[in-house]
Amino acid sequence: MKYCLPVPHLALPESSPHQALNQHFLTKQTEIEHWFQKQWRLTPPPFYTSVDLRNSGFKLAPVDTNLFPAGFNNLNPAFMSLCVQAAQATLKQFFPGCRRILLIPENHTRSHFYFESLARLQQILLNAGFDVQIGAWRESLQSPETIHLHNDGILRIQPLSKKDGQLGVDDFWPCLVLLNNDLSEGKPDFFNDLKQHVIPLPDLGWFQRTKSQHFSYYQHIVETFAEVMALDPWLLAAEFSTVPQVDFMSGKGEAELVAAVEQLLSTIQQKYDHYGIKQAPYVVVKADSGTYGMGIMTVKSGMELMDLNRKQRTRMAATKGHKITQVIVQEGVYSFEKVGGGVAEPVVYLIGSYVVGGFYRVHDQRGPTENLNAPGMHFTPLMFAESGGNLDETLIPEASPNLFYAYGVIARLAALAAAHEAISTNKSPSLTIDPTIPK
Amino acid sequence: MKYCLPVPHLALPESSPHQALNQHFLTKQTEIEHWFQKQWRLTPPPFYTSVDLRNSGFKLAPVDTNLFPAGFNNLNPAFMSLCVQAAQATLKQFFPGCRRILLIPENHTRSHFYFESLARLQQILLNAGFDVQIGAWRESLQSPETIHLHNDGILRIQPLSKKDGQLGVDDFWPCLVLLNNDLSEGKPDFFNDLKQHVIPLPDLGWFQRTKSQHFSYYQHIVETFAEVMALDPWLLAAEFSTVPQVDFMSGKGEAELVAAVEQLLSTIQQKYDHYGIKQAPYVVVKADSGTYGMGIMTVKSGMELMDLNRKQRTRMAATKGHKITQVIVQEGVYSFEKVGGGVAEPVVYLIGSYVVGGFYRVHDQRGPTENLNAPGMHFTPLMFAESGGNLDETLIPEASPNLFYAYGVIARLAALAAAHEAISTNKSPSLTIDPTIPK
Repeated sequence: MKYCLPVPHLALPESSPHQALNQHFLTKQTEIEHWFQKQWRLTPPPFYTSVDLRNSGFKLAPVDTNLFPAGFNNLNPAFMSLCVQAAQATLKQFFPGCRRILLIPENHTRSHFYFESLARLQQILLNAGFDVQIGAWRESLQSPETIHLHNDGILRIQPLSKKDGQLGVDDFWPCLVLLNNDLSEGKPDFFNDLKQHVIPLPDLGWFQRTKSQHFSYYQHIVETFAEVMALDPWLLAAEFSTVPQVDFMSGKGEAELVAAVEQLLSTIQQKYDHYGIKQAPYVVVKADSGTYGMGIMTVKSGMELMDLNRKQRTRMAATKGHKITQVIVQEGVYSFEKVGGGVAEPVVYLIGSYVVGGFYRVHDQRGPTENLNAPGMHFTPLMFAESGGNLDETLIPEASPNLFYAYGVIARLAALAAAHEAISTNKSPSLTIDPTIPK
Repeated sequence: MKYCLPVPHLALPESSPHQALNQHFLTKQTEIEHWFQKQWRLTPPPFYTSVDLRNSGFKLAPVDTNLFPAGFNNLNPAFMSLCVQAAQATLKQFFPGCRRILLIPENHTRSHFYFESLARLQQILLNAGFDVQIGAWRESLQSPETIHLHNDGILRIQPLSKKDGQLGVDDFWPCLVLLNNDLSEGKPDFFNDLKQHVIPLPDLGWFQRTKSQHFSYYQHIVETFAEVMALDPWLLAAEFSTVPQVDFMSGKGEAELVAAVEQLLSTIQQKYDHYGIKQAPYVVVKADSGTYGMGIMTVKSGMELMDLNRKQRTRMAATKGHKITQVIVQEGVYSFEKVGGGVAEPVVYLIGSYVVGGFYRVHDQRGPTENLNAPGMHFTPLMFAESGGNLDETLIPEASPNLFYAYGVIARLAALAAAHEAISTNKSPSLTIDPTIPK
């Protein structure tokens, strides 16, 4: 009798450079793990992080780092214990004695997938030994709401209340508030003057967080790491620049944007020439704050931006909850990974400093330069096993978990960048040890 | 494309009581996890533990707790990351800043399986970010020995040396010594006056450790736990008694042993009557110190002990490394689990306080009352996922990881008993926080 996991079929058109990178990391695994341990001693990790990666064979880089991740339902349930263990270790370290957690979800996401993710997250924390209630603050929620999950389970979302400087629901007043809401629309006042710990910090919400700040920290970290590894940091990071004050509807800032795009394309071309890469460089233009795959464009020349039609301009002008003002221009990383017939990009999940799983975001109708976070995408769990080179025999060659070690390394570099972001945002670590937490 | 894990087929003849126990645990999972968290805050866990369980359907109990476990090669390699994560979390907590580990293996075990286990253990620690060398002290080892593993890897065992109060090999002087040698033959003098931490404590070696002391602590712990769970502790523990000074060759102590066996059988019969269990009670007679499945007898009446032939007496008289003097009489727990056609017992592995995997020890030629740790046994990995009740849909019903949650609970109770044993052995915790550890 067998229990079978789906395994993606990887088809890199020129896999040797990436294989070399992965092999390089595996050879230096002990050093890498030790390096991360040292980093996490100095800089506490975010409670959870999901990182979108792109793998072009010649380079492997994060393109988005989510501090309020959904998608837990897409993780392989067989590896649930990794999540539980990581949650236990992380919460035990930073919030010893805390037993109750209030989970604050997205307000307006009524997607069934989001509720499945929320339920999985709650289950991870319950299995880790915490009492967990879910509290939301949207106006239409005046009494507890029950959501039926597809496995016959239920999710109970209660109206959030505040009393004596504490957030809670009903008569549940927890020591810790876990935010699973990216605060795209702003930080509600009730987060002020709280006696509880809130993780991640509300100030890391998209109402003020910028991708460019994250990738600035990432760039700094990857340079340090690449030096230790004797690697060109460009192999692990997408180049980027920002253009403030762009209005796609009025055309304001368009000239600056075109210039920035041309400049970045030229920088990439130099690197491509250096490495003998034949593909045409491209860049991704997107809002510097925001999420949800809205307002994202792929361009191969500055000219393309001047030829936008009205529909394209409208799409770029509005992202979830607010108007675009600052734009990030990010080096496009070809995705040469395929799962089945579709282009795939890995999404890696961390809880604390631990890689707990991941999946491929797959899109059958999109090409290797396109954004895959779009209608029509589907998910395939990663066979995630952080194993050494001596375990190959148990796996089919294309599915070797060794191939994924590199993903975990890059995702942790991104999480480390987010941890530095958190410190700069609040002048205090994202997770802090505080023995005076109320029970 | 699929990657398939073997899954045991469980066939409990009367599965409802055990299912009820498991369901009971699942319902109280948050409470159980919280209870364990509290325990581990007060009592640091052993670094690693393997626990042999027996599951009769009506009761589930540990019958052996190994503090120097081998068999890591039998764990499912796909779950290697659980081991790595647990090792990182445990070592980070108790030995912050430590980077180098000396692993001391068994001296006389030349079994290929043992070397595979040792290699896996080394790999776990390497993947966790530690430098690991293996050092042994047997006289015949005068220069480094290279052992070829079946996956083309190699294992390098070097002669142990001591300098300035530190154990090491060559010019490797680590901050931590990890003992994977059960010291059945005594504690070598070089363990005295060490400036390094040695885990587990050498004084927990079989040269002086007794099963009866372990199970006394277990009994105490299980009574506390069962009270919280509102359960009869007998459902989770095998009854036992000890008889000092038994010599099977001369017959010395035999009368006392027969009396102890009859007494225990009678106690078990009362419990069987109470629960309406129709099976005949049996007990297991074994050395109170020792391992390796030697010197173990299954008896259903005291009379059987008087009828032993010379061969049986010889087998009972000698265990690995020393002569039996004290004997433990332990309630036999029927094993009604089957994998394929063979009787099976689960073996659960912990690193620190984390359940990291397990397997079934299966014997096709032995019955439900017999010791399965005997020539002819084989191993089947457990599908270990510490999941909640809402993940069933992804698994075939017989292989539900939910069935294994109870195994992890009982194994942790046994590890907790071992942690208390360690404290009483050394008047200091088995793992201690010491900021002055040399790098």
